[in-house]
Amino acid sequence: MWSLRTDLAIEAHEAAIAERAVEENSQAINGVEMIEENIEGILLNKVTVSKEGEAAIGKKEGHYWTLSVPQLRTQHEKWQETVSSVLEAALKEFFPLLNIQPDWHILIVGLGNWQVTPDSLGPLVCENVFVTNHLFQHEPHAVENGYRKVSAIVPGVMGLTGLETSDIVHGVVEKAKPDAVIVIDALAARAIERIHATIQLSSTGIQPGAGVGNKRKELSQETLGIPVLSIGIPTVVDAVTITYDTLDYLLKTMGRSKKEIDKPSNSLLTRALPASRRLKEEDKPSENERKLYLGFVGGLNEEEKRQLLEEVLSPLGQNLIVTPKDTDLFMEQAANVLAMAINSALHSALSEGKGNTVTH
Amino acid sequence: MWSLRTDLAIEAHEAAIAERAVEENSQAINGVEMIEENIEGILLNKVTVSKEGEAAIGKKEGHYWTLSVPQLRTQHEKWQETVSSVLEAALKEFFPLLNIQPDWHILIVGLGNWQVTPDSLGPLVCENVFVTNHLFQHEPHAVENGYRKVSAIVPGVMGLTGLETSDIVHGVVEKAKPDAVIVIDALAARAIERIHATIQLSSTGIQPGAGVGNKRKELSQETLGIPVLSIGIPTVVDAVTITYDTLDYLLKTMGRSKKEIDKPSNSLLTRALPASRRLKEEDKPSENERKLYLGFVGGLNEEEKRQLLEEVLSPLGQNLIVTPKDTDLFMEQAANVLAMAINSALHSALSEGKGNTVTH
Amino acid sequence: MWSLRTDLAIEAHEAAIAERAVEENSQAINGVEMIEENIEGILLNKVTVSKEGEAAIGKKEGHYWTLSVPQLRTQHEKWQETVSSVLEAALKEFFPLLNIQPDWHILIVGLGNWQVTPDSLGPLVCENVFVTNHLFQHEPHAVENGYRKVSAIVPGVMGLTGLETSDIVHGVVEKAKPDAVIVIDALAARAIERIHATIQLSSTGIQPGAGVGNKRKELSQETLGIPVLSIGIPTVVDAVTITYDTLDYLLKTMGRSKKEIDKPSNSLLTRALPASRRLKEEDKPSENERKLYLGFVGGLNEEEKRQLLEEVLSPLGQNLIVTPKDTDLFMEQAANVLAMAINSALHSALSEGKGNTVTH
Amino acid sequence: MWSLRTDLAIEAHEAAIAERAVEENSQAINGVEMIEENIEGILLNKVTVSKEGEAAIGKKEGHYWTLSVPQLRTQHEKWQETVSSVLEAALKEFFPLLNIQPDWHILIVGLGNWQVTPDSLGPLVCENVFVTNHLFQHEPHAVENGYRKVSAIVPGVMGLTGLETSDIVHGVVEKAKPDAVIVIDALAARAIERIHATIQLSSTGIQPGAGVGNKRKELSQETLGIPVLSIGIPTVVDAVTITYDTLDYLLKTMGRSKKEIDKPSNSLLTRALPASRRLKEEDKPSENERKLYLGFVGGLNEEEKRQLLEEVLSPLGQNLIVTPKDTDLFMEQAANVLAMAINSALHSALSEGKGNTVTH
Repeated sequence: MWSLRTDLAIEAHEAAIAERAVEENSQAINGVEMIEENIEGILLNKVTVSKEGEAAIGKKEGHYWTLSVPQLRTQHEKWQETVSSVLEAALKEFFPLLNIQPDWHILIVGLGNWQVTPDSLGPLVCENVFVTNHLFQHEPHAVENGYRKVSAIVPGVMGLTGLETSDIVHGVVEKAKPDAVIVIDALAARAIERIHATIQLSSTGIQPGAGVGNKRKELSQETLGIPVLSIGIPTVVDAVTITYDTLDYLLKTMGRSKKEIDKPSNSLLTRALPASRRLKEEDKPSENERKLYLGFVGGLNEEEKRQLLEEVLSPLGQNLIVTPKDTDLFMEQAANVLAMAINSALHSALSEGKGNTVTH
Repeated sequence: MWSLRTDLAIEAHEAAIAERAVEENSQAINGVEMIEENIEGILLNKVTVSKEGEAAIGKKEGHYWTLSVPQLRTQHEKWQETVSSVLEAALKEFFPLLNIQPDWHILIVGLGNWQVTPDSLGPLVCENVFVTNHLFQHEPHAVENGYRKVSAIVPGVMGLTGLETSDIVHGVVEKAKPDAVIVIDALAARAIERIHATIQLSSTGIQPGAGVGNKRKELSQETLGIPVLSIGIPTVVDAVTITYDTLDYLLKTMGRSKKEIDKPSNSLLTRALPASRRLKEEDKPSENERKLYLGFVGGLNEEEKRQLLEEVLSPLGQNLIVTPKDTDLFMEQAANVLAMAINSALHSALSEGKGNTVTH
Repeated sequence: MWSLRTDLAIEAHEAAIAERAVEENSQAINGVEMIEENIEGILLNKVTVSKEGEAAIGKKEGHYWTLSVPQLRTQHEKWQETVSSVLEAALKEFFPLLNIQPDWHILIVGLGNWQVTPDSLGPLVCENVFVTNHLFQHEPHAVENGYRKVSAIVPGVMGLTGLETSDIVHGVVEKAKPDAVIVIDALAARAIERIHATIQLSSTGIQPGAGVGNKRKELSQETLGIPVLSIGIPTVVDAVTITYDTLDYLLKTMGRSKKEIDKPSNSLLTRALPASRRLKEEDKPSENERKLYLGFVGGLNEEEKRQLLEEVLSPLGQNLIVTPKDTDLFMEQAANVLAMAINSALHSALSEGKGNTVTH
Repeated sequence: MWSLRTDLAIEAHEAAIAERAVEENSQAINGVEMIEENIEGILLNKVTVSKEGEAAIGKKEGHYWTLSVPQLRTQHEKWQETVSSVLEAALKEFFPLLNIQPDWHILIVGLGNWQVTPDSLGPLVCENVFVTNHLFQHEPHAVENGYRKVSAIVPGVMGLTGLETSDIVHGVVEKAKPDAVIVIDALAARAIERIHATIQLSSTGIQPGAGVGNKRKELSQETLGIPVLSIGIPTVVDAVTITYDTLDYLLKTMGRSKKEIDKPSNSLLTRALPASRRLKEEDKPSENERKLYLGFVGGLNEEEKRQLLEEVLSPLGQNLIVTPKDTDLFMEQAANVLAMAINSALHSALSEGKGNTVTH
């Protein structure tokens, strides 16, 4: 039984595969399809979960697309444009899955807390999306072809408003009557390497505060009555995950340099390791080797290891939730990339990257 | 026929009196009552407009209280506490006029644009009010005596959301079901001396954006179905008003130093003027003198003068709306004063100034 | 004797001409040369003051160039690029006047107070200039051709540092040993129409705080020992100036529509005025007409009128220094335009507008 | 040979003791004295390193005081005042060690990058210190008794200025001629539990950027010629440290619950662990047990373990430097506490906590 929470379907899927692999020596999960594409050097992973697959990976029926964009961390302007362009294409391909039509009024909901930098993704994106709905209402003659109705709200977080975020959004949806909603939120990562390096699109809604606080009532087609496309970027990670990942890297590194293990005194094992390629699953050592390297801890399975680390850190109050020190810069970049892609995907007049001409 | 727009009832009343005075040689306006109180050195002006008075001063039936707080401009911490304390008392006295009960859930609505400093009063106040509604819902045991349910939203402005602000507020009110609403907004001043120096309470609602942009649909008991207390501080003024006021000061200054007028060559008139006391209405010169000092312009009445200035500046694009250069500091101070007073007035546990312990 | 202070040489020149015109019926000022150019629709006014001209206009010997860029207020991205491009060209033409060489190390000094939005021009520009000096020191191999050494400091204001800004800059210049300094500061305007609509380059240095506070010790070639190019944009204006300008516009408007003056009752004079073209000097009415329109005040000359207004407003504490309500947006735009132009003018690799690729 | 870098002397000392303990079975380090005091519930650790002790712990001769203030993380206003009060007392006791006299002019240098939240401690403190030096220069009559000359600068970081921070400070010191310098900087922590929970005072200067970037030239009495008191708070930590600490906690947790180790299947060891008291050194298991729990890794000593983790994470680019997600709030609080204490310690008129009346 898989139970650990993750905001990213790709992680739930990998975990389920890992579980299954151990149990059944098989990698296919019934009811879960995965396709990987490589677009302009960026990996797009498309997971589709059917009703049947829900239980297997603990994720609702629907579509989960993941862009792997470690290039965002480099902060090169070139990569921002490339990522934005790939995301624009992905969004345009995703809309039909939710039956979102070109002339629909879209409400963009920027979740999160603008006072907490790593939780400010939604508010920052909303500052840069091209909002047009009021022009259609009040200056229809000024609206050129190629634009649709777009509105945007930043509902805040419960600690600031005293209200359920879903109540606020629901109330606004009833008055503004958009045809679909795009929800933006910062997520918690379950892997160091995903922080500020993954963009997830999903058709199944989102729970406000999932990334950086207590989960609140869901925003989804079930609760709002209209299609909900959610876009998330992991911006925080906890100490348990950092340690877990590091131990996992350590085992793989040692697995790759097994011969070194017999003479640890002179090399600390890894000195000789060529780090030229990324660690892979096949580097993972056998159970015996894992016990040799990491003793009792090495013998635990993934879930047990996480649980143990949580049991060590939480009572001490040291399971810190952290964000990279460059969080201010990262958030600004990520918000720009998302806003550019959303502008270009929503307004045909801004397609193919012209969405940046209307952001700051 | 009085037509000029002003956000401040006290100004509308003064203007109506001035008009009437000319026409009827009488200062009382039927249907409008005014009481002035002095509390801890702060002038509190209470205007009550009856149905009968509506037409006379162009303001809806209801209560309009004005605190004159030029001390706020001095930026002395002492005055912030005094003003906050007087405002707390005024709010507590105002609540019964709207039938607001001590155990009611109050929704605070912070109007305005957080990206435009002089329009950010509402959002800034909302950052500092003590929000408790979610605690009553989720941790009722943690709520001590002396607190009531308070929630707060910052709906944004139409240029950022694409939506009517009143629709957002209306939608939230329907879901959150507060018993009354307190609306905060920055206003436009119709007198230089009121900028950052006046706090207006009113029972008749508010029009989002009245101060710094186009007026939007009203937020009031009529539209929301529950009592609405609005609190406003003037933060901007236009070039017409600055010029109008300066000419008015000039006439009064000259009126006071009439004897100088016959020998202008040696003194520019006003050099000899003792500026030790504030200019008063009785300093205003006669019509003949006004024509002598300011020619054709001096002979115009108030409304005509404003209209003329507007006709000069607007076609040139120079009727700038401006704010004092220290707007950043002013806004922060004003927001703190309001938040402290609101916290203390709403939660009996924080009464008498303890509301500042929960603001930044 | 001309005495009124203005930060803009063009205003001092105009004022001197106006004075002279009255006295001598002649418009040429000895020792002051002025050339006007129109580049891509932008007016560039080049004033050169010789030793002889110093006394005449109250400005030091040197070069004062003024770009008239009312388009900046429109906030169209297109105009930002045009203005930046014209400024880049002007800077490149200005450098030789100060003997600034292509391979010189340039220190950019961003004067002003980052906590006071209308005074934050210097700090904002410094955030966006492309700084390279440390790369020449620490990673010379990483520096491509087409770049020179550029460094930047934000010395703060005396109220925050407790130090003379010129002492800080002097101390840094002695250690960093740049070959020339570019100083950026916000200025006070002496005309409504110049706020956020004028860029002044000058070879004669600058006095920190001139725009928005007390003047401090000068930063100039005399005090620093190396060439100093100062760049300023007016961002604030006082109530005296607003009133003065409005009265001036009023007289000109009335001068243009003289015939209306005889039947003021039905038109407030200006209703019939075609506002299709800008007011010009020749619209100014005769002295008799001025007295007719504005009485005693209309009879005063420019200096007397300003002095009178100051004498009215200052004792009342109402000579507010103000900035347009959109100051946040204006400052961000102006800083971007300046940073882009400076980057392109200093680094040949970024010339012709490529300087924006390194700003935010 | 001890070589690992740490910004905190207390950590270097503990590490040296740990090393020595293994080698010599003795806890005293020659040339290093340590006294622990408990003031109002706050632990103050005073380390004095003599010339002889320098080599032993890799820290320069001088005084290193450490306040342990985990209470700061709770964000209760009460604790902010207590910590500030204890820090005020500690500063007053520290001044004589540097021979700082009550009438000396003190220059406060706020190191760090205001654009990077976890690196903005210095700039934030400088915004809230009470600066008086200019008043002594320009309005000496306005300075009351009980104040001394205080100035403050924020020199920026090399990436923004292109200059060595020490050059800027040196240049300013030469011109402003203060008698002593107080330097504020954010530090890197070498233990999870120290982040935002430790304040270090030291007499030996500081290296700009030590916490969050490349180390730059030192600011110290040797380089500036006047006493330098440095104050630092750790605000960031790297993934290596987080993992190292977690493994250390894990070993101690397991060491305390040894009996559980024989039946890991039903409890994951630690479930039964009473977390009521903090883990202590004596909980550390024997080497054999460490190998049992953590295999090969458990057998490594402290330095080897850190080195191994670094060798695993760094080549993968995953040794992230991180900060708690609430960094915005933490920094604001920490800066307020420091500014209050510095104001009260420097100006006798503000002693005993009155320093907060002049901060925001």
